[in-house]
Amino acid sequence: MAKAEHNNVTLGMVRDSLIRQEDTIVYSLIERARFPLNPPTYDPSYASIPGFGGSLLEFFVKQTEAVQAKAGRYDNPEEHPFFPDNLPPSLVPHYKYPEVLHPAAMSININKLIWDMYFNKLLPSFVSPGDDGNYALTAARDLECLQAISRRIHYGKLVAEVKFRDERKDYEPAIRAQIYSDKFVDVYKR
Amino acid sequence: MAKAEHNNVTLGMVRDSLIRQEDTIVYSLIERARFPLNPPTYDPSYASIPGFGGSLLEFFVKQTEAVQAKAGRYDNPEEHPFFPDNLPPSLVPHYKYPEVLHPAAMSININKLIWDMYFNKLLPSFVSPGDDGNYALTAARDLECLQAISRRIHYGKLVAEVKFRDERKDYEPAIRAQIYSDKFVDVYKR
Repeated sequence: MAKAEHNNVTLGMVRDSLIRQEDTIVYSLIERARFPLNPPTYDPSYASIPGFGGSLLEFFVKQTEAVQAKAGRYDNPEEHPFFPDNLPPSLVPHYKYPEVLHPAAMSININKLIWDMYFNKLLPSFVSPGDDGNYALTAARDLECLQAISRRIHYGKLVAEVKFRDERKDYEPAIRAQIYSDKFVDVYKR
Repeated sequence: MAKAEHNNVTLGMVRDSLIRQEDTIVYSLIERARFPLNPPTYDPSYASIPGFGGSLLEFFVKQTEAVQAKAGRYDNPEEHPFFPDNLPPSLVPHYKYPEVLHPAAMSININKLIWDMYFNKLLPSFVSPGDDGNYALTAARDLECLQAISRRIHYGKLVAEVKFRDERKDYEPAIRAQIYSDKFVDVYKR
């Protein structure tokens, strides 16, 4: 396959990043599995935080994302918040990340689906039952898992874009005609 | 060696925890090494955050520790903040962690030394030079490293306590006389 370069992003770089990101997911799952399920982390009636109706987990994720937004995390188009509404603006100078994606792609955020999959299916499958009281640490580990999985899944947008640009003449007519050929679908399966 | 139990903490459990904690340190260093040094993270003149004179890193660590304190992280005697002054109180119900340590041990926090060691010696030894703009992610990874190293080092207090209780008759006279025998020193070397 020909080496494609788009604003310095090549398929080889994309592939290396995907492999590294999978390591990150594995590490984050191992770190979460050091703690038992710790159900009070997810129980709104446990936390009873003044002025906040949700669980400790939701409180932790919203507050942590606010800190990270102020520090500029979501200026990077590869990062997607789980609670994008009412995030504070970045307080640091804007860094000019390479513009790889089509502007429409920037608005895609499927973190709601990822959140539901993680808490309803993935988490119960790999942690042991039990409660050791480390709810703040548990929430921090959950957020690490969520962020690693989210980055990897949304990175698919970049994979698709780089593959599209490599064979624009094949994909473009199909996209314009909204024909989902096997080849086009394959871009999203990568 | 006889199995010691002190509020359910045995030497075997301590040893298992130490091994697990070392894995966590290795993972966190690998994750930090995915980013280059990213010097603006540490440069107070870069951040210029309104009402905050320090670097992005300091801003990030202080704000994140505040969120984690509200979520109850520092109720666990194994957790030590890097900026303990003016931390907000926990907003969640207090969890009764096992009381293993002597009250005097609870006040020991050598995170200032760990911070200096990490940024002056360890970090420059394993990251590549360069700047990819991911300063918020870099700060998040630094904090993960710091917290993992801090937990492991301060866990030495628990190791010493459990070993002491196992052979109290040997250690106690020396401690009272403030004699630092080879055996006593060995407790701190573990």
